[in-house]
Amino acid sequence: MITHINPVGSMNLLSQIEVDNLKQSASGALYQLFRNCALAVLNSGSKTDSSKEILERYTSFDINVIRRERGVKLELFNPPIHAFVDGEIIRGIQDHLFSVLRDIIYVNSKLQNNEQSSLTSPEHLTDLVFSILRNANAVHPGVEPNLAVCWGGHSISASEYQYTREVGNELGLRDMNICTGCGPGAMEGPMKGAAVGHAKQRATGSRYIGLTEPSIIAAEPPNPIVNELVILPDIEKRLEAFVRMAHGIIVFPGGVGTAEEILYILGIMMHPENRNQPIPIILTGPKESADYFRSMDEFIGNTLGPDAQALYQIIIDEPAEVARRIKNAMPLVRDYRKSVGDAYSFNWSLHIEPEFQLPFIPNHENMASLNLNRNQPPQQLAANLRRAFSGIVAGNVKEGGIKAIEEQGPFLLDGDPEIMNMMDKLLQQFVEQQRMKLPGSTYVPCYRIRH
Amino acid sequence: MITHINPVGSMNLLSQIEVDNLKQSASGALYQLFRNCALAVLNSGSKTDSSKEILERYTSFDINVIRRERGVKLELFNPPIHAFVDGEIIRGIQDHLFSVLRDIIYVNSKLQNNEQSSLTSPEHLTDLVFSILRNANAVHPGVEPNLAVCWGGHSISASEYQYTREVGNELGLRDMNICTGCGPGAMEGPMKGAAVGHAKQRATGSRYIGLTEPSIIAAEPPNPIVNELVILPDIEKRLEAFVRMAHGIIVFPGGVGTAEEILYILGIMMHPENRNQPIPIILTGPKESADYFRSMDEFIGNTLGPDAQALYQIIIDEPAEVARRIKNAMPLVRDYRKSVGDAYSFNWSLHIEPEFQLPFIPNHENMASLNLNRNQPPQQLAANLRRAFSGIVAGNVKEGGIKAIEEQGPFLLDGDPEIMNMMDKLLQQFVEQQRMKLPGSTYVPCYRIRH
Amino acid sequence: MITHINPVGSMNLLSQIEVDNLKQSASGALYQLFRNCALAVLNSGSKTDSSKEILERYTSFDINVIRRERGVKLELFNPPIHAFVDGEIIRGIQDHLFSVLRDIIYVNSKLQNNEQSSLTSPEHLTDLVFSILRNANAVHPGVEPNLAVCWGGHSISASEYQYTREVGNELGLRDMNICTGCGPGAMEGPMKGAAVGHAKQRATGSRYIGLTEPSIIAAEPPNPIVNELVILPDIEKRLEAFVRMAHGIIVFPGGVGTAEEILYILGIMMHPENRNQPIPIILTGPKESADYFRSMDEFIGNTLGPDAQALYQIIIDEPAEVARRIKNAMPLVRDYRKSVGDAYSFNWSLHIEPEFQLPFIPNHENMASLNLNRNQPPQQLAANLRRAFSGIVAGNVKEGGIKAIEEQGPFLLDGDPEIMNMMDKLLQQFVEQQRMKLPGSTYVPCYRIRH
Amino acid sequence: MITHINPVGSMNLLSQIEVDNLKQSASGALYQLFRNCALAVLNSGSKTDSSKEILERYTSFDINVIRRERGVKLELFNPPIHAFVDGEIIRGIQDHLFSVLRDIIYVNSKLQNNEQSSLTSPEHLTDLVFSILRNANAVHPGVEPNLAVCWGGHSISASEYQYTREVGNELGLRDMNICTGCGPGAMEGPMKGAAVGHAKQRATGSRYIGLTEPSIIAAEPPNPIVNELVILPDIEKRLEAFVRMAHGIIVFPGGVGTAEEILYILGIMMHPENRNQPIPIILTGPKESADYFRSMDEFIGNTLGPDAQALYQIIIDEPAEVARRIKNAMPLVRDYRKSVGDAYSFNWSLHIEPEFQLPFIPNHENMASLNLNRNQPPQQLAANLRRAFSGIVAGNVKEGGIKAIEEQGPFLLDGDPEIMNMMDKLLQQFVEQQRMKLPGSTYVPCYRIRH
Repeated sequence: MITHINPVGSMNLLSQIEVDNLKQSASGALYQLFRNCALAVLNSGSKTDSSKEILERYTSFDINVIRRERGVKLELFNPPIHAFVDGEIIRGIQDHLFSVLRDIIYVNSKLQNNEQSSLTSPEHLTDLVFSILRNANAVHPGVEPNLAVCWGGHSISASEYQYTREVGNELGLRDMNICTGCGPGAMEGPMKGAAVGHAKQRATGSRYIGLTEPSIIAAEPPNPIVNELVILPDIEKRLEAFVRMAHGIIVFPGGVGTAEEILYILGIMMHPENRNQPIPIILTGPKESADYFRSMDEFIGNTLGPDAQALYQIIIDEPAEVARRIKNAMPLVRDYRKSVGDAYSFNWSLHIEPEFQLPFIPNHENMASLNLNRNQPPQQLAANLRRAFSGIVAGNVKEGGIKAIEEQGPFLLDGDPEIMNMMDKLLQQFVEQQRMKLPGSTYVPCYRIRH
Repeated sequence: MITHINPVGSMNLLSQIEVDNLKQSASGALYQLFRNCALAVLNSGSKTDSSKEILERYTSFDINVIRRERGVKLELFNPPIHAFVDGEIIRGIQDHLFSVLRDIIYVNSKLQNNEQSSLTSPEHLTDLVFSILRNANAVHPGVEPNLAVCWGGHSISASEYQYTREVGNELGLRDMNICTGCGPGAMEGPMKGAAVGHAKQRATGSRYIGLTEPSIIAAEPPNPIVNELVILPDIEKRLEAFVRMAHGIIVFPGGVGTAEEILYILGIMMHPENRNQPIPIILTGPKESADYFRSMDEFIGNTLGPDAQALYQIIIDEPAEVARRIKNAMPLVRDYRKSVGDAYSFNWSLHIEPEFQLPFIPNHENMASLNLNRNQPPQQLAANLRRAFSGIVAGNVKEGGIKAIEEQGPFLLDGDPEIMNMMDKLLQQFVEQQRMKLPGSTYVPCYRIRH
Repeated sequence: MITHINPVGSMNLLSQIEVDNLKQSASGALYQLFRNCALAVLNSGSKTDSSKEILERYTSFDINVIRRERGVKLELFNPPIHAFVDGEIIRGIQDHLFSVLRDIIYVNSKLQNNEQSSLTSPEHLTDLVFSILRNANAVHPGVEPNLAVCWGGHSISASEYQYTREVGNELGLRDMNICTGCGPGAMEGPMKGAAVGHAKQRATGSRYIGLTEPSIIAAEPPNPIVNELVILPDIEKRLEAFVRMAHGIIVFPGGVGTAEEILYILGIMMHPENRNQPIPIILTGPKESADYFRSMDEFIGNTLGPDAQALYQIIIDEPAEVARRIKNAMPLVRDYRKSVGDAYSFNWSLHIEPEFQLPFIPNHENMASLNLNRNQPPQQLAANLRRAFSGIVAGNVKEGGIKAIEEQGPFLLDGDPEIMNMMDKLLQQFVEQQRMKLPGSTYVPCYRIRH
Repeated sequence: MITHINPVGSMNLLSQIEVDNLKQSASGALYQLFRNCALAVLNSGSKTDSSKEILERYTSFDINVIRRERGVKLELFNPPIHAFVDGEIIRGIQDHLFSVLRDIIYVNSKLQNNEQSSLTSPEHLTDLVFSILRNANAVHPGVEPNLAVCWGGHSISASEYQYTREVGNELGLRDMNICTGCGPGAMEGPMKGAAVGHAKQRATGSRYIGLTEPSIIAAEPPNPIVNELVILPDIEKRLEAFVRMAHGIIVFPGGVGTAEEILYILGIMMHPENRNQPIPIILTGPKESADYFRSMDEFIGNTLGPDAQALYQIIIDEPAEVARRIKNAMPLVRDYRKSVGDAYSFNWSLHIEPEFQLPFIPNHENMASLNLNRNQPPQQLAANLRRAFSGIVAGNVKEGGIKAIEEQGPFLLDGDPEIMNMMDKLLQQFVEQQRMKLPGSTYVPCYRIRH
């Protein structure tokens, strides 16, 4: 089966030179990346979320960029049948397909054109994040603050999932838009809930923004609710996109990935220049998640101290209260942005230190040499703990990380004994609560802590 | 707690004389009807669907129409708290509230003004149905045929409910809008499914139309998906509204109410003048409903004959096929309307005999004197069977009917022995399949068939 | 040449009974009125503004209302060719055509249906004016005050016309919408100017409202800028529509018609109940119109006194200043309406005495018996002077008035000698300034003042 | 007086690095160009069209790009007062101001970034034209062909101007959009006429596109009707933009500039690869312009031959007929684009030879060495004649050209004697018809033809 798909959005208006470049890119080095992301998106309605399974099932799938006088078309060979209705591609999947093409190509051409511009300077890294979002038409100037970023695990219990829907419903009833990592679990529940809340309020133009990475989209294809999909090149830029777009942040239960996110935002917010940033941060879950947040809070208190703890609130089993606090903070966010001359749509004035921006390569050497001692300011310790958790995520689920573990054994983590103990305890709890892998499988740790 | 609610839609633009009339109406004879419908709507998010329970829980609820220079306001005393978010009424509930006011008052004033116009003439009855729909802004001229009317029981099994959602999803993926009786079960599932399908196709302006009656809205408050609510004065006008708006009709499993609906549409479509009407009629359900439709088909074949059977298709467990057939019929509907100069939005050319339009009062006398013999054309037999089932619905769930049964015992039905046997068998099956009352309760028949 | 025209707006959604009534109305007593108004509208692009000339040129023109299943169509025989482009009717003219049909039929049916309602009661008269405007979709709830009503002569000098355009431009630059009597001269200039001002400000949804009467539309067909046309049944309802919709009033130079309008608004605003109404009234013109306004001001001072003079401002040759004062008054209008609970879109709280609402039949008897003495409150004197001027307008240009003058000689006006002198002087000035008829013709007075 | 102006359109969404670059550009080498273009735009409502006069009157005018966290602002010192209403800048002028900034900066950065890309290759030149138009949001994919490009002189007679308005009105009545050089005369008339035609048809979203150059915008500021302003870097790119956007071309009377435009389009359309391009080309004017087109036609016949003459039609004094022919050609344009897979919004498949794309520097040497002999294919002769006329335009009105003439005397043109005679005759006629300068001044030729 061969199908031709027309472009949508900004991909509908390319010059002939751009189409030629695109053809070359998409058939050269980037081809495999593009093909796999496209396949993931075409599978977004399917039940499985194993990227390996998807890739193996559709080995005969192929994708071509073809050039017409008027612009570009996509040619699909043997695409998953459920992306189509009576032979026509589903419009939302078509959107996502061209979002993938748009972002992969854009980032690639941007990086090539700017070899001169140092991509280690904070200013240029932020510029790249902004440019990707703007190119995806995800930055809307002039709109009052209304975006809740929701974080949390992709593998959560049924009652936790239901709770994320209820919080989403309450957010939707208060006209908040939703931005998540766009996979299943805590990334899907708030969007589904908000869609119902928005419908009850007869809201139009609601936004369900999914921010993802090429290495994750295959395992976590965007759900059908996502109506704006942006692919950031790596986890650091994805995290920066989250916090610069956020007007409020809600953290649901999750595993090491969620721990990474919490340490990232706390490390940034602890910086003195961000002292006046009024972004509300709320950690929340149903009653049975209370222990989870107690552990997390204890860990933060013992590593980063009470200043870090003061930056968030923990709310248990009160969906409406969570949404109300977020909503009530919106005027503060607006006033602050106004007072410093900043945009509502992108938090330029949020100060982010290079250690939170520069990509961390999670190999054995880098992991072993992480400074996890108390001889550093707490926000720097946060940065290093963030890296440690990021490495464990890679060792658990990312292709490169898994391979490294197979070849060289678990990562070794070293540092202050008390911190190491705290960390060990937290990770053990994640294992016990089955947050490290999908429920049912046994978790073999990819790390070892030197005591 | 006292709250003032601003008007929306056409109620936002009343003259002072109209406001005065409204105040009088809403505090006079119509008051109780209006109060109870309003309370039902304010409860639309609640879990119970017992009107009695709702009315008893909110005895202190009261509603006033108040006059301001600029128009009307509603004053609510002790309304259900879950109709509000942080003190503001939910916009969808506000819409429904003023839909109730709009339709009750409109019908009342229309009937008063037109005492001269005979409300027994088919022409005037159709005019009233059209006027109510137009006044509710539910008739959209110039739009291509795209409205699927979905019928079926409010008390269906979980797998049947899931099936109605799947059909709804497939209809939504094909840009069909949905119209139902707006209660739970088969009236809710197709809307929920279609909402997801529409979201996948990035559809905007989708319609989820609920047509109800004052005597039913309290027991079956509109679900939050309904974005157009119209209250017709009785079951005959509600049925006429359904069939004149429909571009296609889907019947899911149900009880006597659903049987009434099937006999209504078949009786009309059998009329020679409607021979060329290309409205598709599909009876459908999951595998476990196959028996249900077999019984129904057998009953129709034995009472109305093969001509009636030729008017519908039975499709088991193929949601996409159902939606595809409806969708494929839309060009035929459009061409037919064009060829006879009829509107797409209201099927003026559908011929409806007075026996399907005139209200049937379900008392013992009327029920006993129904002609259920073979000495009449099949469409007339359909009309009388429709009345018989309508009477049983009333005896089961409507206040007046229940009271009559309590006082005088079950309705007596008499007619052709074979027909009577068929009917008895069908009704027994409904009882066995627990379609006569909510699952769990024991059904005591409100009718007796003379053999 | 025969053409069929499809309905637009509310005429696009009629029931079959309504279409039948329409057919009957439009071919019965109302036919001639409807035919002539339709012909006037179809001529709106033509150069002549003599209704007699138009009617004589198109004697073979005919119009039919025809019934189709889906609704109504208009059938035109030998319509003016310049209403069409390549065989298609110009959309603006199509709109106006159905506005004429809509309003003539609506008023007629409204008056028939409400024979019981006393059309002499102020409340019912205001209700009728509101209903006509609402039925024409001319009442927009919730919009901030922004409507400038512009009055003035249809026969003004080139420099006066240019001045009305400049004021219009300045109003348009300040996002004010325009409402006039919709003929040429001072009724056209402000709209043309505002259209340019709106274009400079990239305004969308701008309103150019024309309020007219059946007896005047033929002589003064709506110019192409008018995008909302409403036909009120007589001059009294037209004047009431003007003042209830107005958020500010600008009076340009004119003849007796303009004098009638000034006396109408002053008589109303002088009523104690309207003391706090903040509607700005500005009399304005270019330098060469200074004398005109001096005469008018003197006449008002000598008849109604300084209280009446205090109600308006005279501004000479400052278009921007005129627009600025109107614009600056809008917050006051909004605040006042808010404080009394009144609508922004229709000034319900403006008190209008019956003598300004009840139609005045301008025959010799009524004119002769007008009380033009000082033995009455000034606002009543204003009402009677208004009637006197209204009668002179009729004697000058309306068919019935002209005939009466031909048969019985000029109207006789009697009253307080000083007032009579003032009036005589003012009218003489109108004659000298060629404001009584189109420039070039000699004016023979239709009135005589008893000294 | 100092005023701060907020950005609009794409300038409302800049990254901080972009703002910094902008600040640098706008205060460095580009500053003078930007300042003068901005001043021209701020004067667009003024009566004078002498750029010298404007520049001299506003010597104290200054403009700064200032940086805020959220983006860019413009700071104006002593701007022309009539660009403001009550202290607020007129929205259309604000749009134009940021269009100027957008295009000057975009072209500059585009050329800097692409130093590697040969700007002599046809492919890259077309890519640049497309990119400028797309960046200005002037390329609308998916819209049916409807754009009439109108060419003609800025200095035309009153009756010719009136004629351009009438053609514009007829185009507007047929829903055609207008694109011109955006100055006065034949560049303004069609837009004004179309605006009225569009209003009569209740059209929304109408486009009035002005394509200009930095060296011309000061002398010919965009009129208030222009709602899309694009500044192309030179005359060759401006001409290419015209013909690639055009779905039809109308040429009104004009001088050498218009002759240049005619030779440009004929030279392109004569190329064999453009044989099937169905773009209609119509030369038209009122009765008194008949001689003008006779001369032009004769000149073309004698130089380029009957094949060139076959490419256009001459229509005298029939505005509706002109518009009708353009309108009737639109389906052909659409079908052709469809058949070759080309876009409706940009004519990629139109073949343009390098000699029409590469900038021609009009100095004495280049002018003298132009090959104006018959020893070349006609389309190449057209290219060289185009350059000759382009040089005369520069010698007449552009700063560089005027200076060169002052210093070295008139340009010398040499070539085939018969062609030289034809050219001399045509230019003499332009002088006699006062098309070479504004009416009233005496023209001193800037060229000499060697006989």
